[in-house]
Amino acid sequence: MKHIYLLGSTGSIGMQTLDVISKHKDEFRLIGCSLGSDDEKNKYILNTFKPEIVSLRYEKQLKNYEGLFPNVRFTWGDQGLIDVVTYEKEGVVVNALSGSAGLNPTIEAIKTKKDIALANKETLVMAGDIVNAYVKKHQVKLYPIDSEHSALWQTLDHESQSDISKIVITASGGSFRDLSRKDLENVDLNQALKHPNWSMGAKITIDSATMMNKGLEVIEAHHLFYLAYDQIETVLHKESVVHGLTYFKDGTIKASMSVSDMRIPIAYALFYPKRAVFDQSLTLSNLSFKPMDYERFPLLKLAYEVGKQGGIMPTVMNAANEAAVHLFLKKKISFLEIEDIVFKYVEIQEQIKNPTLKQIIEIDQKIQQEIYQAYEKR
Amino acid sequence: MKHIYLLGSTGSIGMQTLDVISKHKDEFRLIGCSLGSDDEKNKYILNTFKPEIVSLRYEKQLKNYEGLFPNVRFTWGDQGLIDVVTYEKEGVVVNALSGSAGLNPTIEAIKTKKDIALANKETLVMAGDIVNAYVKKHQVKLYPIDSEHSALWQTLDHESQSDISKIVITASGGSFRDLSRKDLENVDLNQALKHPNWSMGAKITIDSATMMNKGLEVIEAHHLFYLAYDQIETVLHKESVVHGLTYFKDGTIKASMSVSDMRIPIAYALFYPKRAVFDQSLTLSNLSFKPMDYERFPLLKLAYEVGKQGGIMPTVMNAANEAAVHLFLKKKISFLEIEDIVFKYVEIQEQIKNPTLKQIIEIDQKIQQEIYQAYEKR
Repeated sequence: MKHIYLLGSTGSIGMQTLDVISKHKDEFRLIGCSLGSDDEKNKYILNTFKPEIVSLRYEKQLKNYEGLFPNVRFTWGDQGLIDVVTYEKEGVVVNALSGSAGLNPTIEAIKTKKDIALANKETLVMAGDIVNAYVKKHQVKLYPIDSEHSALWQTLDHESQSDISKIVITASGGSFRDLSRKDLENVDLNQALKHPNWSMGAKITIDSATMMNKGLEVIEAHHLFYLAYDQIETVLHKESVVHGLTYFKDGTIKASMSVSDMRIPIAYALFYPKRAVFDQSLTLSNLSFKPMDYERFPLLKLAYEVGKQGGIMPTVMNAANEAAVHLFLKKKISFLEIEDIVFKYVEIQEQIKNPTLKQIIEIDQKIQQEIYQAYEKR
Repeated sequence: MKHIYLLGSTGSIGMQTLDVISKHKDEFRLIGCSLGSDDEKNKYILNTFKPEIVSLRYEKQLKNYEGLFPNVRFTWGDQGLIDVVTYEKEGVVVNALSGSAGLNPTIEAIKTKKDIALANKETLVMAGDIVNAYVKKHQVKLYPIDSEHSALWQTLDHESQSDISKIVITASGGSFRDLSRKDLENVDLNQALKHPNWSMGAKITIDSATMMNKGLEVIEAHHLFYLAYDQIETVLHKESVVHGLTYFKDGTIKASMSVSDMRIPIAYALFYPKRAVFDQSLTLSNLSFKPMDYERFPLLKLAYEVGKQGGIMPTVMNAANEAAVHLFLKKKISFLEIEDIVFKYVEIQEQIKNPTLKQIIEIDQKIQQEIYQAYEKR
């Protein structure tokens, strides 16, 4: 019986993780989780999975929930996330938080020797080197949950690092893949939220449309698989069937495929080294691959540059993007202004070569607050 | 330094194996080999690789070669193949013989505890159960060299047997893939020998056109990977880029790809568990997959039936096919008569449930001789 701690339970990845757990009650038990502001979802989770420790989003929720569920230990907010992952029982932390809030809980979980199943890209984008050092020090496992990284993991596993020539991350192209840069001037939020292949949270769906998501994935892959940026390629593959490929120096290429169902990579991380049994099978049809167009998707190109620069720069890019997407979701800025904001903040930031965790978190918050203040009032 | 014994050196797989060896002289040394009737090729091999023991095809070649290469131990014919693989030094036997002649040397090699890199499908088609029992008894390794089986091996390796849902072998469709059954009535040998993707020996090129090759591969896969016939599928994939796929019960599919260069699977078997370094890289473009048409390719359908029946039937099918293809290559019969002959001999043969190796070899020879006698005189 594996103990699971789930951060971001009520989000898209969170709910799908709970689905996997609920279908395999003999394998997994939810010990702790963080909840959101939707009472119905929260109560469903509490009643169904009976976790021992739960972090609420706001302090004001505390009294009500403590009254309703007297056997649960409740906590709340940012500290609540830490309380959950540092709970005394061993287990695996599934980090399905969205955005930079995911970083600190990952670090604290590692310190208590819990393995990490990571859906929160920002953890590695902001502090990949620091996280990897903690992983090594505490000898825990770090499993990716992104479909692309899960696929890459499966094509890389048991292979020798020196045999790898490069890896390729596929990109569906997002909601606006058939539009030109000119067309993008007039797109709106509803259009941006319609992903052709995947049903995902709002933030990642917008990141897919700007291709920032692929940029974050490239940086994530760099840290997960210890590969140089020139060994990490992206390719347009509109069917979203092949999620990742590894090229070996002997001319072999291994690819991993599946239908677009996040429960597959979630289960792979939770069951590893075993596999789950799913009633999800893919019928092979035609697959297309097109070279990535970096002029069309400048944020992806920027991500490579920022990744190579390292230091504080990935944090800056990520913070600016997170704030900008938030503003776009609140209809405060246009789609193309997301790019403008990210480029601007990356340009004005001075490099810090080996930032501490404290510096990373401070700069992330400073940039996000600055951007909100500048555009919120519009 | 790995010792290599190469049977069928002068054939297509043989020469490509020598190419791999010659490019990795620090890794491999050719200790023994069998040669053919082309003196120029034979002398090139003897001079370049300086093997210790060599089997000639005919007794009449002996005197000449012994005079020219006094330091080499020469032998000849069927017994010569056995002499080579039972040579006293340890090593890997690469069996690149064509046809049923490959069976006995494989068995004798296993008995002297040599690992086998197998390009000779007939070994497993005719006597898979017997070969596997010897492999187990003598604890040797059996590595596939066929591109499809090498690909499947790479997608199956390190996975648990119980996690596998099915495997898929791809088929280019062969020389006549765009022709209807009606069109096949008028095709000739030259057309049949033009494979769209692969440059291979004559026998396997004809087997690709009739799809018998895929049938033999299905039976081979059954024995190599211990999978039931309903777990082995074939699919039309005209690009010959994806060579094999494994479907797992959790919804994941792993595929292995490469350019159409047999040196890649050859090197994989020889270097395993390491990988070679090759200057062969594939640019991803569009990949197409179409369901197999069993009415168009009746020999493939027959292979499944014969495989399920087991016993002596795969030997009968293989023997009839081998003789028929030989006759077609000598322009004694038409293309469609290959199928007629195979179906006829499978139909008239009585089943032997657990044939001995002796029975298998006797029936193989009896059927081939009968067919030659019946059609040779035309």
